[in-house]
Formats: sequence, C-alpha cells, structure tokens
Amino acid sequence: MVVVMAEGATDAQVEQVVGQLVAMGFDVHRSTGAARVILGAVGGSERAEPALIELLDGVREVVRITEPYKLASRSFRPEGTVVTIGDVRIGGDEVVVMAGPCAVESEAQVRAAAAAVKRAGAKILRGGAFKPRSSPYSFQGLGEEGLRLLRWAADEQNLKVVSEVMDVAQVELLARYSDVMQVGARNMQNFTLLRELGHLRKPILLKRGIAATIEEWLLSAEYVLAGGNPDVILCERGIRTFENYTRNTLDISAIPVVKKLSHLPIIADPSHGTGRRDKVAPMARAAVAAGADGLIIEVHCDPDHALSDGAQSLFPAQFDRLMAELRIIAPAIGRSICVEPVTRRGWAR
Amino acid sequence: MVVVMAEGATDAQVEQVVGQLVAMGFDVHRSTGAARVILGAVGGSERAEPALIELLDGVREVVRITEPYKLASRSFRPEGTVVTIGDVRIGGDEVVVMAGPCAVESEAQVRAAAAAVKRAGAKILRGGAFKPRSSPYSFQGLGEEGLRLLRWAADEQNLKVVSEVMDVAQVELLARYSDVMQVGARNMQNFTLLRELGHLRKPILLKRGIAATIEEWLLSAEYVLAGGNPDVILCERGIRTFENYTRNTLDISAIPVVKKLSHLPIIADPSHGTGRRDKVAPMARAAVAAGADGLIIEVHCDPDHALSDGAQSLFPAQFDRLMAELRIIAPAIGRSICVEPVTRRGWAR
Amino acid sequence: MVVVMAEGATDAQVEQVVGQLVAMGFDVHRSTGAARVILGAVGGSERAEPALIELLDGVREVVRITEPYKLASRSFRPEGTVVTIGDVRIGGDEVVVMAGPCAVESEAQVRAAAAAVKRAGAKILRGGAFKPRSSPYSFQGLGEEGLRLLRWAADEQNLKVVSEVMDVAQVELLARYSDVMQVGARNMQNFTLLRELGHLRKPILLKRGIAATIEEWLLSAEYVLAGGNPDVILCERGIRTFENYTRNTLDISAIPVVKKLSHLPIIADPSHGTGRRDKVAPMARAAVAAGADGLIIEVHCDPDHALSDGAQSLFPAQFDRLMAELRIIAPAIGRSICVEPVTRRGWAR
Amino acid sequence: MVVVMAEGATDAQVEQVVGQLVAMGFDVHRSTGAARVILGAVGGSERAEPALIELLDGVREVVRITEPYKLASRSFRPEGTVVTIGDVRIGGDEVVVMAGPCAVESEAQVRAAAAAVKRAGAKILRGGAFKPRSSPYSFQGLGEEGLRLLRWAADEQNLKVVSEVMDVAQVELLARYSDVMQVGARNMQNFTLLRELGHLRKPILLKRGIAATIEEWLLSAEYVLAGGNPDVILCERGIRTFENYTRNTLDISAIPVVKKLSHLPIIADPSHGTGRRDKVAPMARAAVAAGADGLIIEVHCDPDHALSDGAQSLFPAQFDRLMAELRIIAPAIGRSICVEPVTRRGWAR
Repeated sequence: MVVVMAEGATDAQVEQVVGQLVAMGFDVHRSTGAARVILGAVGGSERAEPALIELLDGVREVVRITEPYKLASRSFRPEGTVVTIGDVRIGGDEVVVMAGPCAVESEAQVRAAAAAVKRAGAKILRGGAFKPRSSPYSFQGLGEEGLRLLRWAADEQNLKVVSEVMDVAQVELLARYSDVMQVGARNMQNFTLLRELGHLRKPILLKRGIAATIEEWLLSAEYVLAGGNPDVILCERGIRTFENYTRNTLDISAIPVVKKLSHLPIIADPSHGTGRRDKVAPMARAAVAAGADGLIIEVHCDPDHALSDGAQSLFPAQFDRLMAELRIIAPAIGRSICVEPVTRRGWAR
Repeated sequence: MVVVMAEGATDAQVEQVVGQLVAMGFDVHRSTGAARVILGAVGGSERAEPALIELLDGVREVVRITEPYKLASRSFRPEGTVVTIGDVRIGGDEVVVMAGPCAVESEAQVRAAAAAVKRAGAKILRGGAFKPRSSPYSFQGLGEEGLRLLRWAADEQNLKVVSEVMDVAQVELLARYSDVMQVGARNMQNFTLLRELGHLRKPILLKRGIAATIEEWLLSAEYVLAGGNPDVILCERGIRTFENYTRNTLDISAIPVVKKLSHLPIIADPSHGTGRRDKVAPMARAAVAAGADGLIIEVHCDPDHALSDGAQSLFPAQFDRLMAELRIIAPAIGRSICVEPVTRRGWAR
Repeated sequence: MVVVMAEGATDAQVEQVVGQLVAMGFDVHRSTGAARVILGAVGGSERAEPALIELLDGVREVVRITEPYKLASRSFRPEGTVVTIGDVRIGGDEVVVMAGPCAVESEAQVRAAAAAVKRAGAKILRGGAFKPRSSPYSFQGLGEEGLRLLRWAADEQNLKVVSEVMDVAQVELLARYSDVMQVGARNMQNFTLLRELGHLRKPILLKRGIAATIEEWLLSAEYVLAGGNPDVILCERGIRTFENYTRNTLDISAIPVVKKLSHLPIIADPSHGTGRRDKVAPMARAAVAAGADGLIIEVHCDPDHALSDGAQSLFPAQFDRLMAELRIIAPAIGRSICVEPVTRRGWAR
Repeated sequence: MVVVMAEGATDAQVEQVVGQLVAMGFDVHRSTGAARVILGAVGGSERAEPALIELLDGVREVVRITEPYKLASRSFRPEGTVVTIGDVRIGGDEVVVMAGPCAVESEAQVRAAAAAVKRAGAKILRGGAFKPRSSPYSFQGLGEEGLRLLRWAADEQNLKVVSEVMDVAQVELLARYSDVMQVGARNMQNFTLLRELGHLRKPILLKRGIAATIEEWLLSAEYVLAGGNPDVILCERGIRTFENYTRNTLDISAIPVVKKLSHLPIIADPSHGTGRRDKVAPMARAAVAAGADGLIIEVHCDPDHALSDGAQSLFPAQFDRLMAELRIIAPAIGRSICVEPVTRRGWAR
C-alpha cells in the first residue's frame, strides 16, 4: 500500500506509521517531498487492513496497490480463458448464446422452448428448477422434476444445460443434471456456496450482484478459483440505479472493463438486465457489439402464461430475428455466431 | 392492481385487458373518463404479474395496489411488535444497545469487550464466529470455538448474545449458543436460509442488503414470518451510493419509513454503515434521534490489532461517551436508555 | 391521478378525498371493491400535486397517470422527429457522427482534428470554447476566439459545428458560430437557459444530467419545445453509479427507452460516458447497436497534451477503425453510416 | 500524485512515466520494491491530469494525493468558519434554524409563516421568489414582488432572509432583498453563477447537487471562495438513490464527513431531503444529533393549499414541537438552540 502523510505531519507521526507497517510485515520505502512524505509499503500480509493505517495521526490517505484478487486477474492468464463444455467453447471466437425459459414449468413448455432456441442457433438451454423469488408467495420452481425435464429437452436437441443452484445442499443434485452451474445475483456473495463450487469439476456461471462492484465480483470468482475450479464464466445482468423505466440498468461498460481486468469470459443477460421484452434485443445487440463472449436470454413459446418473468421473455420469432441481427454485428469485432445447418432430432414444435 | 389505458385505446383493447384480468381471477371495475379508461382490478391471485398486463396493446401503465408483504405490514399489527429476549425488550420504550467486537478472536479479547460494553449499558453482546468476507484470503472466523467464547463472556456479564448465521447448515449450531440469530446484508435474499429461520423459535436480526429497497427487505422478513417465527428485528446498515468518503451511506431515513410501513422493530448499525470509527458516534446519535429502537455497535479494547474491521470499532472510552450522549437524546423522542447500576460478576478488565 | 384508499378507510375519509379532488378541478370516478375503494380522477389542473392527496387520512397511494411532458412525448409525433441541419439529418436512416476535440486549444489543433474526423466520416465538428470545469483552477476554454477557430476549421472541411453554451448571456454569441447549441449535463436543469433556448431557431443538443431520470430529461426538453423550438436532440452521456472503474456508467438502455417514450432523436457520448480512451470504441459500437441516432466522440491528434479530457480522446487512427466497425454494425438495425468519398479541401494534416 | 507501476513494468516504461511527470512540472521520487516500482510526484501543475499518466504503458494505477480544493479545506482554517449575519452566527455554538414557506405566494401567507417560525425560535426566514421547477407548467414564483413581501415579513419579525438565486442576471436583484443568497441543488455546478457570487459580499448557502460527491460540492464552494467571498454555508438536501419511499435520501453522514474535510459550516434541509411532512421531524433531529450547524425547514400555515411543495411543509404546531425536541438534543453535542423570550412586533397570526 501507499501511505500519503498529511502536510505538516511530524517525524514522530511518520515513525509511528512506519513502525506499524513494519509490524504488519511490510518493507517500507520513504519518499520525502517538499510538502509531504509518502510511504510505499510492499510485501505485507494479505490480511493487513489499510483502514487501520488511515486512522493513525498524520495520515492523509492510504491507497491499496495490489488487486485483492489474483487468480481472477488478467495478469494471471494474459491470453484469456476459454471454458469448454463438450464442443461448446466460451471465450473463443464464437459468441455463445444460452436461451430458454425462465423457469421449467412443464414437459411441453421446456421441449418447445428447447426446439425453438436450438433452431435459432443457441448452444445451451437455460431453465430454472429452483427459483429465488423476492416474495415467499411467488412460484418457487418444480425442483428435481424440473431438472429432469430440462435435461431431457436439452438432450433431445443436442444442447448443453445451465441451471441455477441456490444452496450448498443443492449442489450435488444440480451437478447431476446441469453442465453449467449458475450462481444467481443474490448469491454472488454466498461464500459458503462459492467455496463448495470451488471443489466441483463443472463450469460456474457467476452473475454479478445488483450492487456489486466489479472488484467484489472478481473476488467472488476468486473464491471458486481458489478452491481449484478454473472454469468461471462471469455474467453481467444489470445493476440497480435510480432509473425506474427499466428493472435494472444493464451495465454494458462492465464488459470491456472486465475484459481488461480479468482473463475470465463474460456474457450478458439482457432479459434480467432490462425486465422488458422490447428492450431485450437492443441490449443483446449492444452487449455483443461491446465484446461480450456470449448471451443468456429468456425465450418462452407462450410468455403471456409463463409462471415467472413472462414480461421479459422473447417469443421464438423475436429470438430468431435477434440471432440474425447478431450475426451481422459479430464480425465487426472479429467474432462469429454459429450458422451451421441444424439437424433437428426428435420432437419439433 | 390498477390498469391505466392509453389515450385512444380501443374498446377491443380494453376488452382484451379485462378478459386477461378476469382470467387471472380479478374482479374488474371500469372507470371511463373523457380521455381514457381506468380499470381497477381486485381480488386476484398472489402470483399475477402486473408486467404481463403492461405489455398488452393499449395499456399505458399498471399499478400494484397491495403491498406484496402482509405479515410484515404495519396494518397486520398496528400497535407494533416488541421482541422479548429474557428481560430485554426491543421495540418498547427503551433503546437497546448491542455491542462487542466484529469477530471473536480470543478469550481475553471477547471477555474484555463484554465487560466494557456491559459497564456502559449495552444489553446484548455481539461477535462473529463465522465471517462473510469479500476476499477468500481474509480471516474467516473461529467457528464453534468462537461461539463458545462469546457465550461464556456474555454469561459472565449477564448479557444476551447475537451472532451471524451464514448458511442453513449452521443454523442448529448457532441456535445452541446465540439468543438472536443475525442474517447479514449479503444473505438478505438467501431465501433458503430465511425459510429455515422461519421454523426457529429465536429472534432474527435481519440486516438490509446494501442495495435492497425497503420493500425487498420487508419481503425477506415476510419469509421468516410466514414460516411461523414472529420475532424479526430489522437492521439498517448502510446502502451503497456513489459517495466514497464513507464505506456505505447509512440510510437514516429508512428508520421513520420502516416505522410507518411495518410493525417490526428497527435498529441501526453505524459501524458497518460508515466503516470509520470517527463517524460512528454521530451516526449512532442520529439513528436514535430519528427513532431507532436500538443500535448494534462494534467495540474492541484494542482495535488497532483487531483481525477484522478494526478501523470501525470504538475504543471502550469512546463507547462510554457515546452512551452518555444517547441518554441525553433519547428523551427527546420519549425513549430511555438503561442507566441502572451494573453489578459486575466475575472477571473484570 | 388514481387514488387508492387504504383497507378500512371510512366513508368520511373517502368523501374528504373526493371533495379535495373536485376542488382541484378533477372529475372523480369511484370504484368500490370488496376490500378497498379506488378513485380515478381525470381532467384536473396541471399544478395539482398528488403528494397533497397522499397525506390525507385513509389514503394508501396516489398514482399519476399522465406523463408530465406532452410535446416531448412519442404520442405527440408518433412518426419521430428528424432534426435537419443543412444536409445533415439526425433521426433518419443515417447514424450521424459528431467528433472533434474536447476543447478548442489552438488553430493547428482544431484544424488537424477537423481534417481527421472529416476523413473518417464525421458530419459535425465538436469543440468547447467555454468549459464547465469542476475545479476553478482548471483550463476554462478560449472563449470567442475558440469559437472563431472552430467555425473556421469546420467550414474548411464542410462540417457543421456543435459547441456548448453555459449561460443565458452566452446564447447570442454561441448562436453566431455554432449550428447546434449544446447544453451540458450540469445545465440540464438550468431552466432559465432552457427557456431562452426555446426562443432560438437552432437545434439544441440536450445532454442528460448524471443523476437525471429519463422523465426529468424529457421535462427539460419540454422547456425548450414549449418555448417554440422543435429541434431538440437528446444525448445520453453516462450516469453516476457506485462503480468506479469507469468515470460514469453510460446508460445504453436509455436509448431504447427514450425511443419508445419520445419522438426526439437520441445520440450517445461514449467519451464522457466512460472517461477512458480504451472504453470509447466498445461503448460507441454498443450505442449504435442499441439504436442510437448518432454519436458524439472526442478525437484529438495529440491527446497526451490536450488541455482537457485527453485521457478519453481517441487518436485519429482509433477513430478511423471505430468508424469502420460502425459501418458493419449499422445495417443490423436498418441504418447506415456515410461512406461517400470525401473531397478534402485546403489544409490537411 | 502517486504512480503505481504494474508488476513487470520495464525500465523503459518507468522512464517514460518519469519523463512525462517531469514535463508536467513534478518532482519525482522513485521507490523500488521487490515486485514493483512506485513513483511519488509532488509539486506539479494544477492542471495535470492523472488520467493521462494512467494510460501510459506499464502503469497500474495513479492516485491523486492533494485535494483539488484548497480554500475550502479544513487545513486552510482549522478552527472552523463562523458566518455572521448581523447577530446571527452560523457555525458557532448555536444551532441556527431557517424556516418559512417553499414559495412566497401572498402577503398574508408569508406574514403568517414569518410570525409562526419566529415564535418557535427560527432566526432566518426562507421563501422562494424564483422557483426552479422540473416542469415548465408548474408555478414559477412571484418574482420581485415575492422578494418584497418576503423582506417585509422578515423585517416585521426581526428575522434575516434567505432566498434562491437562479441565474447571473438575478444576482443584483436578489442581493437587494436577501441576507443570504441560496444556490439550489440544480445550480451547484453552474460555474458562471458561482463565479459571480464570489464577487459578492453576502453569505452564500450552497446546496449539494442530488448526485454530487462531497469533493465536487467543496470544489463548487471553492469557486465562490476563490472569487473573494469567504462566507459559504453548505447545505445537505438529499441525494438520489434507488429507494423510492422518500423523494431523496438525506445523507446525514455527509455532516460529520464535511466537518472533517472543511472549515465551512454545514446545515441540513430535511424538507427537500425527504419530500414528506411526516419524515421531516425525525430527519431534522437526526441532522442536529449528527452535528449540523443549522437546519432549513419548510413551514406553511396552510400547506394543503400551498402552490408548491405543500406535502413536505410542516404546520406551525409541528414546527413548534420539533423545535422543543431539538432543544433537548442539542446539548448532547455541546450545542444550544435559542430559547430567549420572543417579543412579537406588529402583525400576529
């Protein structure tokens, strides 16, 4: 850390700060200017709290100079991480689209959605079986039966599966059915859960909390990485601001910022990020234009009767058009979106 | 809900909306003005999503007219709730102060802190045994040994205990040692945990998430209340804003707002709410002046060597002075703070 | 407005509310449900304050049902407004790019910038002559001499001019040199200035305040429109959030939201919106992908020595590459960006 | 500033940074640690932009180490400033209360309000003659006639006057009638106006913008101070957050923060800070408990018929009770509130 002493700080005050820093295990470099002294402290303990130094007499400001995250830092793997799920690669040249219903509601619903999103070019089927809902009176998901239906529908279309895990006790169950384990925004700092997922051998999709700084988000990724699981995919899904026309404000600028700070792939969720169907396509296009490695989008064949989040789910035809628009945009940044002819297996809508 | 149709909405559009509302189980009252039609919909399902109606053609706006919470609402118990823990009553005439170290670090540390806060008039000893830390590399707490020390130090001083529970798996353990179960800001929407605590027969101290609206906070309380546990104490601990001089912005206005909306007691945490020792006393006074039912404050006999949050912990002498100031302020709003002579048992600092 | 009475509101309370609404000039429609009464009030005065009704006994909530802006509303001109400046049309099929230095510093600087941005396809030259700076000690602009240089450099390249007006007293001067009058974010609610600009016959570029809601922004546009000036171009330039990696958070979602609410064209300013050169291109691409009618971008031939905002200014070569990327993206949303061969007149870099 | 080089930065990169800093006029102190180099730069130009250094290769972070404000800094006048207006002293032992209607509406209204607030112990009469309103269709104030009435009512009660100035062109007029010139939140960064007020010999009441950081607020004060006017009173009036139950979030913590950073007095405006009558008293008490030097409160004898902000105006009886509560609280922080018997002159309500 760098300690900036106040103008007029006494020698005794400087000595006290130096003493405390040394006691914390730091090497201290002193730089004496005309008006003030600056102390550079390197090598100290992880646990040293800059705030403690800040309270000492004569100290004007303390600045931390190492990111608190290490394994998540771009400098740890400058070339970038590609997360591989079978033949799907997230973080490579292709922009990968995950799509499907907010919640799994029935066999017919999830199969229809899977067929629709596959047709349009999605690679991964999304669907919630356990839903974290603000109100205890809202639909809470089908549980394991939902996972079973989701897996079946995905397999039928040769899609991978991503679904949300809400609690340590659900990890084993989710891991049986899902290829990617989603950690929701509300659980971004559920450290018990993150630690558990660090021991898993499955990719984790880590959503950003609605008021999390990017540093906190990367620190949460660090919990997973530090546990031994190298495959974290970050997902921007909107932050809370004073603006009420949209449910959240999808922070598109987080995409280039994360790309610079971290080697981890980052995708965007324009469905939760806006909460309104008519805003999903513009924000999805914006995310890809800004450099996102992928998208996760809610698609429902009958959103007006969806049990949750129907208002932000696209109709299949809207999703088709969006995918076509994305295919035009991706080359502007040297990316592509899958266009191979799709062989439909089994049940079609 | 109330549905406001756009100017120029056609009869067919109005009919479609009415039909959908009726299908959702609502009784619909139509009010036709010169320029537009307003539909009042009452009696429908809990699960009806206003956003779905908002997307229909000709609809300008949909307004929800019932709070989504019921058991937490002031109208459910207009006289207010007093949470009783032995001879301590939170929500009554007395302003109750909880104090102690951020984390339990050692026997000597927690016993010294307990003696100090008891002497000044605190009724409940705080101390963390499991610490939710943003970084995986920070001190994570002593675990059960910490709880044992905390309970012992509290009993020695005839204090109650409050400590944080981070996960469903810890509930049983925490409940053995703690009189009040604290749910941290990061877990405010850990619904699995909240549901579990609804089955407990111990008071829950529910901290507000740093970006939670008051409505979301009351909905989280609703999870506990709906499970059958009537004793929820709300705790304002600061929201995240653009201002960086303080770690968070303690939202003092949340105190009178919650008092109006809910019957539950509300306390404030000026230690986490500011993150800086020299801001704790002003904000503690402000919280009491605004009508808080209590405070939770970090006190450490040697904060410069605290393993966590030392920078926001008061020295015992500062805590003494603060308590004296609060005793002057409390009568301005018809409250008091305990002044009975304290009989010290056993070990003294 | 719609007044929702509390459950259990008495008849006398309802009568009092009805009386007050009638006194305010409203027609009142009463809708009596099983649990509560809803009052629909239409036709009252512009100046009626819903908050006054909200304070009456027995009232649970008051909802305003008309937008407070009228002339800025999409319903006022459903087909959308195209602002025409000579042969430049903002709000039509073409995405219009304004570019140039933050501040005019010298003849050589502004001529070089003008040549560079023209070559890349910009249509309008930006440059500040009066700079609103947070600190009184920062460079405040060249004043009229700056405007003269700006106009000259623009004319030399057949570009239009946009420059900022900070005060009523400057309006006449700015109008002599500039084709578009920019109102900065800090002046978005300088109502005296807005009223004055309402009497002008020049397009106004109205930037969004860093904490302005979209409704407030449209109300500020309304001030100009109500004065008789129909040509307002809105400019999103970043809102303030808790995130510090970027100077502001460019709210890309404001673009589709404004497109729905208003008929006015909207452009984005990724330079101020991010404050960092390496974030400008991703956010510029995102804005166009989301449907922006144009961009305003800082370009400087020697940004390392710029007197203001050098850190967010693009080098000409970066701007060239960005324009090429935008030409790929625009067709995805049915737009284009000028590609006609440019005839360079006079001085070249 | 302090420049932290990245791990692995080359000597050439360090040299380039040093060269640039020296070119900016800084003396540079180099501190070489095991892992990285830290450069301390002191004495450079006011205009040096840290962001420019931050963009250089090999730079990890740049930290500014001097506050950009000087005259507003606590270190400039450690003992604190007392602003004197006749026999009223703001920033001394007494907590000074300013009160009166939001807008001057009529002779009867302002005289009644003046009598009421005087009786309760206010020292300064507030009232707006020029109102900055979000909507062009709202009541905009009585103009000079309002000022005349305000002055008359104040003189009759031996009160001082504070009123808002919105534009440079109004300064001379306002100065004729008002003892304190208020700059509203929306004009906090109207630098043209601030510069003009720097040449005045009257105290300035500078409200904080709804999204202004404390540093920006103090920089705006610096504009006035740098112009030669030493009498600036800061006024916290609420910041915009995501919470909607209150119109703004009155940032009580800004009071102790400003007290530490600056020598200027600070007061709070709980009326605009909450927007709701029933929240004014709790927040006024909180502000005084946190150490505010004064309050500015809206009081109206008939708020239900006020032409603006009636919903946040106190009835005289509510104001009386609040003043009594504040007289209990003030001694807790070594302050007092005037209790001398009031001799009523002339007209009484």
